[in-house]
Amino acid sequence: MRDVKKVVLAYSGGLDTSVILKWLQETYECEVVTFTADLGQGEELEPARKKAELLGIKSENIFIEDLREEFVRDFVFPMFRANALYEGLYLLGTSIARPLIAKRQIEIARQSGADAVSHGATGKGNDQVRFELGYYALEPGIKVIAPWREWDLNSRTKLIDFAEKHQIPIAKDKRGEAPFSVDANLLHISAEGKVLEDPWEEAQEYVYSRSVSPEQAPDKPTYIEVEFEKGDPVAIDGERMSPATLLTELNRLGGENGIGRLDLVENRFVGMKSRGIYETPGGTVLLQAHRGIEQLTLDRGAMHLKDELMPRYAELVYNGFWFAPEREMLQAAIDKSQEHVEGTVRLKLYKGSVNVVGRKSPRSLYSEAHVTFEEDTVYDQRDAEGFIKLNALRLRLLERRGH
Amino acid sequence: MRDVKKVVLAYSGGLDTSVILKWLQETYECEVVTFTADLGQGEELEPARKKAELLGIKSENIFIEDLREEFVRDFVFPMFRANALYEGLYLLGTSIARPLIAKRQIEIARQSGADAVSHGATGKGNDQVRFELGYYALEPGIKVIAPWREWDLNSRTKLIDFAEKHQIPIAKDKRGEAPFSVDANLLHISAEGKVLEDPWEEAQEYVYSRSVSPEQAPDKPTYIEVEFEKGDPVAIDGERMSPATLLTELNRLGGENGIGRLDLVENRFVGMKSRGIYETPGGTVLLQAHRGIEQLTLDRGAMHLKDELMPRYAELVYNGFWFAPEREMLQAAIDKSQEHVEGTVRLKLYKGSVNVVGRKSPRSLYSEAHVTFEEDTVYDQRDAEGFIKLNALRLRLLERRGH
Amino acid sequence: MRDVKKVVLAYSGGLDTSVILKWLQETYECEVVTFTADLGQGEELEPARKKAELLGIKSENIFIEDLREEFVRDFVFPMFRANALYEGLYLLGTSIARPLIAKRQIEIARQSGADAVSHGATGKGNDQVRFELGYYALEPGIKVIAPWREWDLNSRTKLIDFAEKHQIPIAKDKRGEAPFSVDANLLHISAEGKVLEDPWEEAQEYVYSRSVSPEQAPDKPTYIEVEFEKGDPVAIDGERMSPATLLTELNRLGGENGIGRLDLVENRFVGMKSRGIYETPGGTVLLQAHRGIEQLTLDRGAMHLKDELMPRYAELVYNGFWFAPEREMLQAAIDKSQEHVEGTVRLKLYKGSVNVVGRKSPRSLYSEAHVTFEEDTVYDQRDAEGFIKLNALRLRLLERRGH
Amino acid sequence: MRDVKKVVLAYSGGLDTSVILKWLQETYECEVVTFTADLGQGEELEPARKKAELLGIKSENIFIEDLREEFVRDFVFPMFRANALYEGLYLLGTSIARPLIAKRQIEIARQSGADAVSHGATGKGNDQVRFELGYYALEPGIKVIAPWREWDLNSRTKLIDFAEKHQIPIAKDKRGEAPFSVDANLLHISAEGKVLEDPWEEAQEYVYSRSVSPEQAPDKPTYIEVEFEKGDPVAIDGERMSPATLLTELNRLGGENGIGRLDLVENRFVGMKSRGIYETPGGTVLLQAHRGIEQLTLDRGAMHLKDELMPRYAELVYNGFWFAPEREMLQAAIDKSQEHVEGTVRLKLYKGSVNVVGRKSPRSLYSEAHVTFEEDTVYDQRDAEGFIKLNALRLRLLERRGH
Repeated sequence: MRDVKKVVLAYSGGLDTSVILKWLQETYECEVVTFTADLGQGEELEPARKKAELLGIKSENIFIEDLREEFVRDFVFPMFRANALYEGLYLLGTSIARPLIAKRQIEIARQSGADAVSHGATGKGNDQVRFELGYYALEPGIKVIAPWREWDLNSRTKLIDFAEKHQIPIAKDKRGEAPFSVDANLLHISAEGKVLEDPWEEAQEYVYSRSVSPEQAPDKPTYIEVEFEKGDPVAIDGERMSPATLLTELNRLGGENGIGRLDLVENRFVGMKSRGIYETPGGTVLLQAHRGIEQLTLDRGAMHLKDELMPRYAELVYNGFWFAPEREMLQAAIDKSQEHVEGTVRLKLYKGSVNVVGRKSPRSLYSEAHVTFEEDTVYDQRDAEGFIKLNALRLRLLERRGH
Repeated sequence: MRDVKKVVLAYSGGLDTSVILKWLQETYECEVVTFTADLGQGEELEPARKKAELLGIKSENIFIEDLREEFVRDFVFPMFRANALYEGLYLLGTSIARPLIAKRQIEIARQSGADAVSHGATGKGNDQVRFELGYYALEPGIKVIAPWREWDLNSRTKLIDFAEKHQIPIAKDKRGEAPFSVDANLLHISAEGKVLEDPWEEAQEYVYSRSVSPEQAPDKPTYIEVEFEKGDPVAIDGERMSPATLLTELNRLGGENGIGRLDLVENRFVGMKSRGIYETPGGTVLLQAHRGIEQLTLDRGAMHLKDELMPRYAELVYNGFWFAPEREMLQAAIDKSQEHVEGTVRLKLYKGSVNVVGRKSPRSLYSEAHVTFEEDTVYDQRDAEGFIKLNALRLRLLERRGH
Repeated sequence: MRDVKKVVLAYSGGLDTSVILKWLQETYECEVVTFTADLGQGEELEPARKKAELLGIKSENIFIEDLREEFVRDFVFPMFRANALYEGLYLLGTSIARPLIAKRQIEIARQSGADAVSHGATGKGNDQVRFELGYYALEPGIKVIAPWREWDLNSRTKLIDFAEKHQIPIAKDKRGEAPFSVDANLLHISAEGKVLEDPWEEAQEYVYSRSVSPEQAPDKPTYIEVEFEKGDPVAIDGERMSPATLLTELNRLGGENGIGRLDLVENRFVGMKSRGIYETPGGTVLLQAHRGIEQLTLDRGAMHLKDELMPRYAELVYNGFWFAPEREMLQAAIDKSQEHVEGTVRLKLYKGSVNVVGRKSPRSLYSEAHVTFEEDTVYDQRDAEGFIKLNALRLRLLERRGH
Repeated sequence: MRDVKKVVLAYSGGLDTSVILKWLQETYECEVVTFTADLGQGEELEPARKKAELLGIKSENIFIEDLREEFVRDFVFPMFRANALYEGLYLLGTSIARPLIAKRQIEIARQSGADAVSHGATGKGNDQVRFELGYYALEPGIKVIAPWREWDLNSRTKLIDFAEKHQIPIAKDKRGEAPFSVDANLLHISAEGKVLEDPWEEAQEYVYSRSVSPEQAPDKPTYIEVEFEKGDPVAIDGERMSPATLLTELNRLGGENGIGRLDLVENRFVGMKSRGIYETPGGTVLLQAHRGIEQLTLDRGAMHLKDELMPRYAELVYNGFWFAPEREMLQAAIDKSQEHVEGTVRLKLYKGSVNVVGRKSPRSLYSEAHVTFEEDTVYDQRDAEGFIKLNALRLRLLERRGH
C-alpha cells in the first residue's frame, strides 16, 4: 500500500464516488478533498456538498465549481474548429471533458497540498486513461488512485454492502442495478453497458434523455442562423451569447428537433470494441454549421489539410492525449486556419436531421464572377487546357512506359 | 487547327452534345463516332440513336451501352469501401462516373480507329479535367477536343442559332435558359449554376427530383437490413441483388424517405468555389450501412488508417485521378482491409435521416465477454495501470523538463 | 504462479538465456523447448545445441534453424520497399528480426504442444513488446513468460551466482559486466547501454565490429551496380544472388568502406529515450540503391504517397506491429507501387558515404525528349501558363479577400 | 499583346536576363525596372547595375539588394525546422529562394508603380511556377510576363543574334553553349541539363564548384559543435553568428570536407522527371545537426507527427506554395514543436559524410535514470506487461476471429 497523505477525488456526490470516498479514507487513512464540477451534466451541485460534509469532509476540503464556460470555450470550441469526429461519427463528448477535470484536480492538489488524485472510472474504459494521462502530464510526480482497479468491490452487491456498512445514504433507485451507465456534460450524454451490450438490438426510447425522438419532433422545420468569428460560434439568430449559453441553446434547439442521436460501436483505446448510445444535439448542429461557414471562407488547401489531420486529432482527443505536444501542434495548425472563418450559416432542423441551407460571409472566398456560366473576363477557359495537360503529363509517360 | 480524322464523342442526345457533334463535323471535317452510355441517369437511350442518325452518323459509328452494372461494381462500390467523402460531405456522385465514360471512349476509339475524343464539359468545371485525365492516362497519344474551350458559341443565343442553322431539332423546353444545370447517374443527381449561384439562398423544392422532401416523407420510419460481403453490399432485407439493382433499390428506399439531399459549397480542382445541390439517396444509406458493418468487423488500426487515408482518396477521385498509381495504391490498402467486412446492418430511414440501429456479423470483433461490466476472466483490469503508465511516461518526462 | 507445462524459449546459447532456461525449469517446473535461429548474427549455432543438451534439454526439444533467407526475403526486403527509416535515420535492424523469431516460436509451440513461450528481452526495451505482440497476434491464448520482468536476478552478481549454483558454464569474458549490450543479425548490429549512455560522448572505435572506420577504409572509391526487380535487389555487378547472399555481399562491400554507422538517440515505444550505436552497412547501401531505382521508375504520385506513408510504416515496425492489419494495408499499397521498380543503379562507396551516381531501367519514366532544353514537340511550353494560372487561382482569390 | 506600362524584372545581369530586358522594352514598349538580389550566389552585384544602365535603365529603376540575412532567417531556417527533404533527398535549395525574390519584386512593383513582373525561368521547369505562384498570391492583379514561354528566341543562336543586334555585351565564354545550367544561392548550387541529361552517366568533377570531392578532402576529420535555440542554429564552436554568416561558415566547413553532393533524378511539378546535381554543404551539415538536437529535446509524439507532415511540407515548398495557407498551417505546427529545441550538437565531418557524434541540452528529455540497465526506482518493469497486453488485445481478438 502506497503512502498517501491527502487525495483529491473527482466527486459527483453519487453512490459510487461516495463509496470511493469512504474506501479512500479507510484504505489509505488519508485526508480526502472532494472536487465537484458543473460541466453542464444537469445535476445540482449543492447536494454533493452536503453529502461530502456528511461523510466527514472538512468544508475547506470541498471544492465545487461551475466550469461550464471554461469547458466550452477552451475545450469544446477548439475541438470543433477541427471538425473532429472519432471513427467518422462520434463527437467526442465524454473525451473532451476529462482533461479539464484532470487539470482542475491537479490545480486543487497543488493548492491544498495533496499528494494524490483519484477518480471513479473503471478499469476497462477510456476514461481512466484520459484522467490519468492528464494527471501525469500536468504533475508527473502525482500519485494516482484508481479504486476500481484496486479494490474487490467488483459487484453491485458488494458495493451496496460497503455503503450500508459505512452509513452512506443510498437513493432508492440506486439499490438495483442501473440498466446502463451514463455520462453527461454540456456537450453530450452517453449511455453504455448492460441492456445496450448487444449491438444488434436497437436502443429503446427510454435510453434517450436529451432529445425527443425524430417521430415526436415538430412537424414543421426550425430554421436558425449561427454566426461565427475566428471559427467559433458567437451568436444564434443575431443574439450574441457566451460559449456555454450558446451551446445550451443549441442543445435546446437540436434536442427539440430530435437531432444528434448516435448508435455506435467504437474502438476503445484499451483494445476492445464497445457500443454506446450518444446524444449530442447542440454539437451535431454546430458541426454542420462550422462546416458550412468553412465552405465559404476556407481555402481549399487549408480545408483539405484540415480534413487529413482531423482523424489523428480526434484519435488523440479520444485516447486522452489532450495535453500532448502533438495535439498542441495540430491545434496550432488548425487555429491558424480559422483566422477568417467568420460569417453566418442558416440551418434547417427537422425531425432528426440538420442541414445547411445558406451561408454568407464578409470574408467569403466564393466568387460568383468566377463560377458563373456566363461569359466572363476573370477566368480564361483556355487556361484549363494547359492545367490539364501538365497534370496529365506524368500519367501519359506512365502509360507510354506501360504500367 | 489540328488534323483529326475520327473523333469519339461522349454523346447524350441532348441539344448541347448535338451542337458539338455538328460543330466537330464542320470544324474538323472529321468522322464522328457517338458514344451514349446508360449509367442510370434515368433517360431513354434510343432517342439518342435516332438523333445521331438524323445528324448523319453512320450506324456502325453509333455506340449505345448499358454500363450500370460495371459502373456500380467497379467504380461506386470500390469507392464506398473507402467511405469516401469529399470535403467531409460530398459522396462524389459526378466524379466517379467520369473515369468509366473516359475508359469506354478510349476503348471505342481503339476499336473504331479514331484518333480523337471529345466531351461536352465546360472550361470552368471539374469534369473536363476528369474526362481528359482519363483519356490521357489510358491513351497518351490521343487528341482531345473540348469544344467549350475552343468555340465561340459561349452564350445560349449563339448555341440556339447554331442549332437552327444546322437543322438540329430543339425541344421546346430547351429554347430558354435552364434555371440550373444537371448531372445524373445511378449514384446521384446534381444541380448547379444560375438560380443556385447565391450560396445564401436556400434551394427551392423544384430543384430536387430524386427524393421527396423530408416533410413529405412517410410519418413512419422504414427499417431495412443491408447485408455485406468483403465490404460490398450484396442483399437488402435478405434478397441478394446485382450491384446496380441493389443501388437502384437503395435509391428508391432513400428517396422515398427524403434521404440524401446536400447543399454544398465546394472547392473545384480548377481553383474556384462553387455551390451544388446533390441528391444521393442510396449512397447516403450505403455509407451509413458500410460504416455500421465496419464498426463490428474492422480492427481499430485498420479503421483509423482508413480514416486518415480517406480524404486523400476522395480528393483524388474528385480531381479525376482515378487511373493514377496513387489511387490504385490506396485502393490496394483499402481492399486489403475489407476481406472480413461481412454481416448485416439494420438501418432506420425516417424523414431525411438514416441511422444504424443494429449490426451483426459472423466475423464480428466485438466481444461481450470483454466489454461487460461484470467480473470477468478475459481482461485483467490491472493491465490498464501499466498501459497508462507507459503511455504517460513521455508526458511525465516532458513536464519534468518544463514545456 | 501460472500453470505452465511446456515453454518454447528463444535461446541464444549465451549466459543470459541459459540462466533463463534453468530458471524456467526451476520456477515453473515445466519442460523447456529451445529455439535457436541463425538470422545472420554471425555466431555458430552448434554450441547452443551442446549447451542446451548439457542443461538437460531433450534432443527433440532442441530446434536450431537457419532462417537467413526467409528473414531477408520476407521481412527485410518488404521493409526496404517502403524506404523505411525510423525517426529519419534508423534502418530498423533489430525491430525487423523480432516478428520472425516470434512466428517460429509460435509454430514450434504448436508443433511440440507447448502452452507458453519465453524470451530474454528486458522490461525496459522495445524487444519485449515486439516479441509479445507477435506471440499474441499469432496465438492469442499463448502464455508469455518474460523472466526479466518476473525474477529478482536484476544484477550481474545475482545472475552469475544463479549460474554458478546451477552449474551453468560461464565463459571467462562473461564474468564481468559487458561494457554495452549487443544485438546482431544479417541486417545490422547494435550496441547500447552502459558506456554508451551519455549521448554527448562519442562512441569509441571498439564499439564497432561490422565496419571499418571511414578513416581506415580504402583511399579509392568502390563502384558497384545493384540490379532490381519488383523493388527488390536481385544482383550485384551482374551476378544474381539469393536474398541473404546478396545482403551478405552488400554488408561486406559497405563494411569495407566504412559505411552504415549511426549514432542515434531514439524514442522507445515504452516511453523513454535511449541512445544506440548501429552498424547497417548493407542496408545503408540498399536504401540508397532502392531510392535510386525508384527515382527512375516510380511515378511522382506513387512516390510522394509512399514518402508520406513511410514514417507510419516505420513506426509500426519499430513498435512491433508487424502482424497488425494496418501494417499489412500499408504493405499492400507499397507493394502495388513496386511492380515496375526494376533496373540497375550504380553506386560509389567511399570512406563512409554511399551515393548513387547512375541509374538505368527498361521501365524508366525519365524522358530526355521532355526534359531537354532544346526545342521540342512533345511539350508545349504554353501549357505551363494555364497550369500556373489555375494553380494560382485560389491564392489570388485569397489575397483579394485579404488573409 | 497585353498592355504593360512598367515591369519589374528579376535581373541577374547575365546574358539571358539582359536579352529579356531588351525584349521587354521592344515587345511591350514599357518601362523596365530591374531587381537584382544577393542571395549568396557568389557574384558581384555592381556589374549588374552597370549593365542595366548601359541598357538604358534609369538609375531610380535599378534595385540592387543584399537579401542574404532575410533569406536565411525567414526562409531557410524555418524550412530546416521541418527537416524538409523532397523525395527523401533534396534539400530544396532552389525552391526556397524563389518566394523571396517574388515577394521583393511585388514590393518593388508597388513602390515603383509597376503593373507587371517578369522572370527568366523557362517553360519546362519548376521555377516559373514558384515565381508566378508567389506573384499571384501576393498581388492577384499583377501581370506576369514569362518571356521563355512567349518569344521565339528558343535556341542559343537566336538568342546571341538578338543580343548582337541590340548591342548587348556578350562575355566570351557565353558565346558557346554552356554544358549545363546553374542556379546558386547561399543554400546550394545546382546544375542540370545538357551533359547531365543521361541519368546513367556519372557527373564529372568539373560540374562541382562549391565542394571539393571527398577524395580531395582532408585525411583527418573535422569536429564542430553547432548550438541551437528554438530550433535554429545560432553558434558554431561557441561563436554566435547571424543566420547568413552561420550558413556561410557551414558551407565552408562542409565544402572543405566534400559534404553535400547529391545526384538526383526528381519529379518536377510540371509532370516530368529531371536530373540534377546539387551541392548543399552547409545545409547537409545543418540537417544532421538539427536532427541531432531534436533527438534529445523533442517529444516522441511531436517528432513522429513532424516526420509524417514533412513530405507534404517539402512538396509544398518544391511546388512553389510557400505563400499558401496550408504551408503556413504546417509551419505553425512545426514552429510550435521547436520551442525547446535548444542545445549543442557535435558533428564529425569527414570526406563526404557528416555524422552526429554527441549532443547535449539544458532542455534534454533523455533520462539516464530511466534508460539504465541498473536496478531503478523510476520505472516499474511490470508496467510493461499491462502495456503490452492492452496493446495486444485487439490483435488477439483479431486472431481469434480469424483474419
